[in-house]
Amino acid sequence: MAEKEFNLNYFFYPSSVAVIGASKNPNKIGGIIINNLVKSGYKGKIYPVNIKCGEEYNEIAGLKCYKTILDIPDTVDTAVIVVPARFVPDVVEDCGKKGIKSLIIISSGFAETGKEGKKLQDKVIEIAKKHGIRIIGPNTLGIVNTNHNLNLWFGMPIRLKGKISFISQSGAIADGLFGVAQDEGIGFNIVVSLGNRADVDEADLMLYLKDDSFTRVIGIYLEGLPPGAGRRFLEALKETSTVKPVVVLKGGRSIAGSRATLSHTASMAGSYEVYVSAIKQFDGIPVESMEEFLDTLKAFVYIDRYKSTQKRIAIITNSGGLGILAADAAESLGLSIPEFPRSVQEEIMKVIPPFGNPMNPVDITAQGTPEDQYKMYSEVFKIVNDPSLVDGIIVIVEGSYPYELMKAIKDALVKEIAPNRRLPVIVCWFGALSDIRDLVKDVEKSGLPVYMYPERAVKVMKNILY
Amino acid sequence: MAEKEFNLNYFFYPSSVAVIGASKNPNKIGGIIINNLVKSGYKGKIYPVNIKCGEEYNEIAGLKCYKTILDIPDTVDTAVIVVPARFVPDVVEDCGKKGIKSLIIISSGFAETGKEGKKLQDKVIEIAKKHGIRIIGPNTLGIVNTNHNLNLWFGMPIRLKGKISFISQSGAIADGLFGVAQDEGIGFNIVVSLGNRADVDEADLMLYLKDDSFTRVIGIYLEGLPPGAGRRFLEALKETSTVKPVVVLKGGRSIAGSRATLSHTASMAGSYEVYVSAIKQFDGIPVESMEEFLDTLKAFVYIDRYKSTQKRIAIITNSGGLGILAADAAESLGLSIPEFPRSVQEEIMKVIPPFGNPMNPVDITAQGTPEDQYKMYSEVFKIVNDPSLVDGIIVIVEGSYPYELMKAIKDALVKEIAPNRRLPVIVCWFGALSDIRDLVKDVEKSGLPVYMYPERAVKVMKNILY
Repeated sequence: MAEKEFNLNYFFYPSSVAVIGASKNPNKIGGIIINNLVKSGYKGKIYPVNIKCGEEYNEIAGLKCYKTILDIPDTVDTAVIVVPARFVPDVVEDCGKKGIKSLIIISSGFAETGKEGKKLQDKVIEIAKKHGIRIIGPNTLGIVNTNHNLNLWFGMPIRLKGKISFISQSGAIADGLFGVAQDEGIGFNIVVSLGNRADVDEADLMLYLKDDSFTRVIGIYLEGLPPGAGRRFLEALKETSTVKPVVVLKGGRSIAGSRATLSHTASMAGSYEVYVSAIKQFDGIPVESMEEFLDTLKAFVYIDRYKSTQKRIAIITNSGGLGILAADAAESLGLSIPEFPRSVQEEIMKVIPPFGNPMNPVDITAQGTPEDQYKMYSEVFKIVNDPSLVDGIIVIVEGSYPYELMKAIKDALVKEIAPNRRLPVIVCWFGALSDIRDLVKDVEKSGLPVYMYPERAVKVMKNILY
Repeated sequence: MAEKEFNLNYFFYPSSVAVIGASKNPNKIGGIIINNLVKSGYKGKIYPVNIKCGEEYNEIAGLKCYKTILDIPDTVDTAVIVVPARFVPDVVEDCGKKGIKSLIIISSGFAETGKEGKKLQDKVIEIAKKHGIRIIGPNTLGIVNTNHNLNLWFGMPIRLKGKISFISQSGAIADGLFGVAQDEGIGFNIVVSLGNRADVDEADLMLYLKDDSFTRVIGIYLEGLPPGAGRRFLEALKETSTVKPVVVLKGGRSIAGSRATLSHTASMAGSYEVYVSAIKQFDGIPVESMEEFLDTLKAFVYIDRYKSTQKRIAIITNSGGLGILAADAAESLGLSIPEFPRSVQEEIMKVIPPFGNPMNPVDITAQGTPEDQYKMYSEVFKIVNDPSLVDGIIVIVEGSYPYELMKAIKDALVKEIAPNRRLPVIVCWFGALSDIRDLVKDVEKSGLPVYMYPERAVKVMKNILY
């Protein structure tokens, strides 16, 4: 176990990386990988390796290159392999001789292609085991560690650092999610595309990320587990979940979907219901869609899970309609929106207009000056910010205009609500957020995650309570 | 009936508008309304009216103003009323004398506040009826008709024109939706906030918008209908749905939500299940969330409804994982992802790599040059673009990098798929869309709506098939 973790550290914090199959062509896999790594600002040594080096050319991406891994004069912590599948066994053998303990095999053409490929993969693993090498892949898009400026990724360049780490059985999903997240201002820390998962798996990585201080929350996209691997997965899930939240998106719950997982990552999808109830039982957080997955990961950057048996939610809104939609979504997901006791309602009525609604959802209405709105949001929050009354609070803001009014509401969120909250607080801000990007950013900086749609905020709240 | 429609035309295509209660203060309702109207580029005449005019000042928003509506020397088609509730009966009386037939009453303080307010509202309606006046409101945020540059809206200035018309029982929801839609590049045509719905209602407006040539799709946010109004609503829904799609989001399905509708718009929510099945039966399209509402409205800007009993969907994807998630979502919503017959699979295998998947979802993989990707998307589409095989096609694209590759896929969508489609086609493009905004715009211009998340694309497909 100790050795395992030692090796995983080499993957994510290497002092030197070789790219075997690096290419001068920026559109080839070996070109994208070496360029992404160079551009990522990685501070360690980089060694491009290509069989043509020393003959046709002597450098790749501006770096001296080598014909084989054995020609590199220094030690190498990690190697990325992008050569065609049939050459991989020999390359791994050479890496073993070189003393490299961590290999990322991007090359495809292994178990995902059928029996012959599976044989080749088994051979690679056998060689690796002999040398004590750990492997991520094959058929992976690679790994990323933004806090080490390490981008060994065959896909989009990663621009945003963050506190979310992501383990994905699908490389493309991780690649796409970087993009979607980047558009929403969400960054990642460590990301691993597992590919065929011939060696390093979710359990290894969960336990590693559990102790990674840059990771606040772990996301897993899972299509299936190999026979017999379920127990190890669930035990690692339980152990990791005691330290940080683990959010799991399970693909392949449908007939067509599970038919496709077999071809996609050579894994049996298994019964979706069995997976979901096991994930819950072992303290993981299952989600139903990619959107809910990212929304929930984002929330845990700001908020911790919150123990609650009753799952009572208070909704504070300046729009009656949005309050109603949020309440509808909440009840349909098993949350409760309790009508407040008369005494609480009376307190609330002292600070909202007579045509407002104190029952819950609390409709403070859109009436009044910016100062009035500041006061109403703050005062109503003060009244419902009470663990004996509810277990979570959703604050809804409609609008993006006029700016002064929106700024006043932002101030209430940042100055009065965020610092005084005794419960999980999630914000739904419904409007032209591009007009008030700065305000939304300030709210998130203060520790309150913001979502555009009420139903999305509610789903996240459901996932925070357990 | 004929007279009714005549009056509604005055609302949306007036040659002259008076704002009664217009204010020099740009932060007051009467100031926002007059400024929004002036800035909207409205080409008709605008008459600000304020009791202080002629005494304290002579102009508002740069326009000559009048003490009362009766002081305006010309005819007035429509008046917007923003004076305090207690003055409204007299103002409506004056409007009747002036011969105005269309009033938008923004002022609140009527039925939504209780019994006394209801009495005042009844009085206003009685006066209006006497003069043959139609009323939108009271307690409304106003109306918008972007193709007439008419912005009588107490909220954000509307910037984007479009083909979606929206009837909302909640003004704030309409206001927020403008903003959300604007951020996604979606515009509106006619928008009406019904407020307390004392006179003009959903049925009136559906039948009016049915014949409005600028409207391709109608969205309705509904909290409830007054007793006895159900039949009229459903008959108008059925009649309108023969001409264009009507998408309905119903608020108040939960206990807390229906408790809140009573306070919010003085309406009984009624049984959600009864509503939804009635809406379906009368050919409307019920949706479950605000996000699905806007996504579906956007689709109908580009696509017509498609009759299908079997609801068989083909999925073409360059990411196996996203194909699986789409298939999962599709089956959970009652769509079917049929495994293609052997002959079709064989045809597909001729154009995709051996480790691709031809079963459906069709995983063309991310392999190859931009030209290869162009060819694979186009050729696979040609094979499955067959009404005897499926009833709709979802094309999934993962990625936003490198640009040349993305451009090639865009070209396949625009040049090969859009012009040749015989079925509804929806695109899921999962990545950093801000990096390829121009490509996504081109795809939508070609008639294919684009969504970021696979599950959202699937929900929209479900709503297009009937």
